[in-house]
Amino acid sequence: MPVNLAPIDPSALHPVPGLTLGVAQAGIRKAGRHDLVVLQWAAGSTVAGVFTKNRFCAAPVQVCREHLAADVAPRALLVNTGNANAGTGADGLARARRSCAALAAQLGLGPQQVLPFSTGVIMETLPVERIEAGLPAALADAKADNWALAARGIMTTDTVPKAASRQVTIGGRTVTVTGISKGAGMIRPNMATMLGFIGTDAVVERATLQQLVREAADQSFNRITIDGDTSTNDSLLLIATGAAGHAPVTALDSADGAVLREAVVDVARQLAQAIVRDGEGATKFIAVQVDGGRDADECARVAYAIAHSPLVKTAFFASDPNLGRILAAVGYAGIDDLDQGLIDLFLDQVHVARQGGRHPDYREEDGQRVMKQSEITVRVDLHRGASSTTVWTCDLSHDYVSINADYRS
Amino acid sequence: MPVNLAPIDPSALHPVPGLTLGVAQAGIRKAGRHDLVVLQWAAGSTVAGVFTKNRFCAAPVQVCREHLAADVAPRALLVNTGNANAGTGADGLARARRSCAALAAQLGLGPQQVLPFSTGVIMETLPVERIEAGLPAALADAKADNWALAARGIMTTDTVPKAASRQVTIGGRTVTVTGISKGAGMIRPNMATMLGFIGTDAVVERATLQQLVREAADQSFNRITIDGDTSTNDSLLLIATGAAGHAPVTALDSADGAVLREAVVDVARQLAQAIVRDGEGATKFIAVQVDGGRDADECARVAYAIAHSPLVKTAFFASDPNLGRILAAVGYAGIDDLDQGLIDLFLDQVHVARQGGRHPDYREEDGQRVMKQSEITVRVDLHRGASSTTVWTCDLSHDYVSINADYRS
Repeated sequence: MPVNLAPIDPSALHPVPGLTLGVAQAGIRKAGRHDLVVLQWAAGSTVAGVFTKNRFCAAPVQVCREHLAADVAPRALLVNTGNANAGTGADGLARARRSCAALAAQLGLGPQQVLPFSTGVIMETLPVERIEAGLPAALADAKADNWALAARGIMTTDTVPKAASRQVTIGGRTVTVTGISKGAGMIRPNMATMLGFIGTDAVVERATLQQLVREAADQSFNRITIDGDTSTNDSLLLIATGAAGHAPVTALDSADGAVLREAVVDVARQLAQAIVRDGEGATKFIAVQVDGGRDADECARVAYAIAHSPLVKTAFFASDPNLGRILAAVGYAGIDDLDQGLIDLFLDQVHVARQGGRHPDYREEDGQRVMKQSEITVRVDLHRGASSTTVWTCDLSHDYVSINADYRS
Repeated sequence: MPVNLAPIDPSALHPVPGLTLGVAQAGIRKAGRHDLVVLQWAAGSTVAGVFTKNRFCAAPVQVCREHLAADVAPRALLVNTGNANAGTGADGLARARRSCAALAAQLGLGPQQVLPFSTGVIMETLPVERIEAGLPAALADAKADNWALAARGIMTTDTVPKAASRQVTIGGRTVTVTGISKGAGMIRPNMATMLGFIGTDAVVERATLQQLVREAADQSFNRITIDGDTSTNDSLLLIATGAAGHAPVTALDSADGAVLREAVVDVARQLAQAIVRDGEGATKFIAVQVDGGRDADECARVAYAIAHSPLVKTAFFASDPNLGRILAAVGYAGIDDLDQGLIDLFLDQVHVARQGGRHPDYREEDGQRVMKQSEITVRVDLHRGASSTTVWTCDLSHDYVSINADYRS
């Protein structure tokens, strides 16, 4: 059961003018599952993406980077679930390219105009012939109001589909931002999540769009973790069709740029937090806020040390205010000159530790009360500087072990 | 149930001439448990230690470092379980000092001649008056052949006591090395384990002894991980009483030094591996060997990325050869210029991946066979250089979650 994550309401997902989605059941790994998604967008759109920093990045990630760097503008993307096409060597690259060529042929495009994405089991051969066989059905299904089914079509161990949508006004025109994401395990994105796709009909220059997708990732997908495992396939793509017809956004610090940025970051953050809320085995949604650091990097190191600690995560699962475990994680986060005598620790509004020791007024029942909630903010103040960062994570439960001990069976 | 760890045989633990151990039940956290241990050693002994790098180090660790740096030679140490006296601020330091003073008074020593150690729950007040009340019983119990009970007296969530013993010949004299350790969770030592105490009657200069304890830690306790959580209390102490009476060992690269080093490293490694074999919820003992790195540091980074991955650890628990998870961990270990096309992966003798992809001869049933074993070696060859490192770890099971969700209740 995801933590406080309402089912998506298809009617609340605004179509993005200039963009269609088609979904099919291709039997990639199991029969009867929506496992193939094709997105197409209008000529003249701009596209920008960020990808995993995992050096063992999957074949589709490598091909995607190549195609985005090519001279021709991409016009479609192809996603399969059930097989990540990672750890598959030269053969995997060939299969990713073949899938692009197959879709390109049906759409009258060049192969480099198709971007491939895969997610699922690692180190198994991609059944590209099943993808080819499934393409006609996916293309026949193409329509603008198909975001909800597409969100379902990219799921793996996710228990619910994930989508978010916003509308803002730019240059007097209504601009839509709608996106979907998937991911529930192997989540500690380093650039993006497992898979996230956001479309908008805003008019945006490509360089500005690239800056926007990176900023959005840094404030959303790059601030979540479930198990600390950075995936081989993390990808976030932002497509701007330009159908809204306002004057082009050429800088994020312009008035229009700020409106668009706020909307894209908001959608990205909803999609990223949805991944944590549906984290494998998650029973709690936890924000870890670190204040008073010298820079954002050291705040993030402390926040991730807390968010990755199996001891902290199991204590949250048990609703046990065994909060010394949080202090221990702060201590091993790698800040060599940290002064433990300055540290404050709060659980929501409860002041747990002051100057590195238990606060004299802290009562166990206050900690217990907060720990029982399904949403908790851990706040650490390092008292070393003015920087802050927040990371979102979930607890570590029996179900996490069950899900990952059984995933392939 | 610990993994392939035979119960300790008290008669196999050679007493160390010049050193006695006394154990008592002081009711630190629960009644009826051996939770207080006093070690005493002869005047003229040398003592050296290494301690946690956690910046939130416990009060006893801070006091221990002070006392070791003082002008007077330490003559005794005091260990309590049930309370780590960590995250306790200035009050915790005062209580640690008071416990040293109490033991010193009974032994006619200065307070700085006593070294304090604590292990157990973090961020709770140390009941120093119970320690004081328990000291007479611990002192009355002092004897040389008490290593087995002392091993029991330092346990927390350990399911079995841990000890190892060796005898070697130096300068025609029989020299004994005997040690004990504890720890089962919050284990990713960074200098030493939770607690390890090794005694020898070898004659060793203090500077040489300090070098020896660091080398022993680096080859043993600093190469294990259970959950990646570096404790606030990690400490390893090496005491050389000199009772064997041979010519002093003044260099580890001398003939005598090499014999002593081999024995101390062997005892330390047995003690460290015993901690992994008794890791919280462990059902498997896994060696992660990384070859072909440019230096030991990058080998260790890759080995720890694998050893800390919850996805890898749950796959071992399930005996599921979902080995792409290991490649993914190699990829996010932080080696920026890693070439995935060079990587080999072996599970014991089974060649799983070659040049970054599934080996054409690899059969799932071969991987499955190895995964079902209780002892497994994962070997990764990076093919970048000549360096190697091995790290020892265990799997992640339902019992790990249960133990840490229930630890304080």
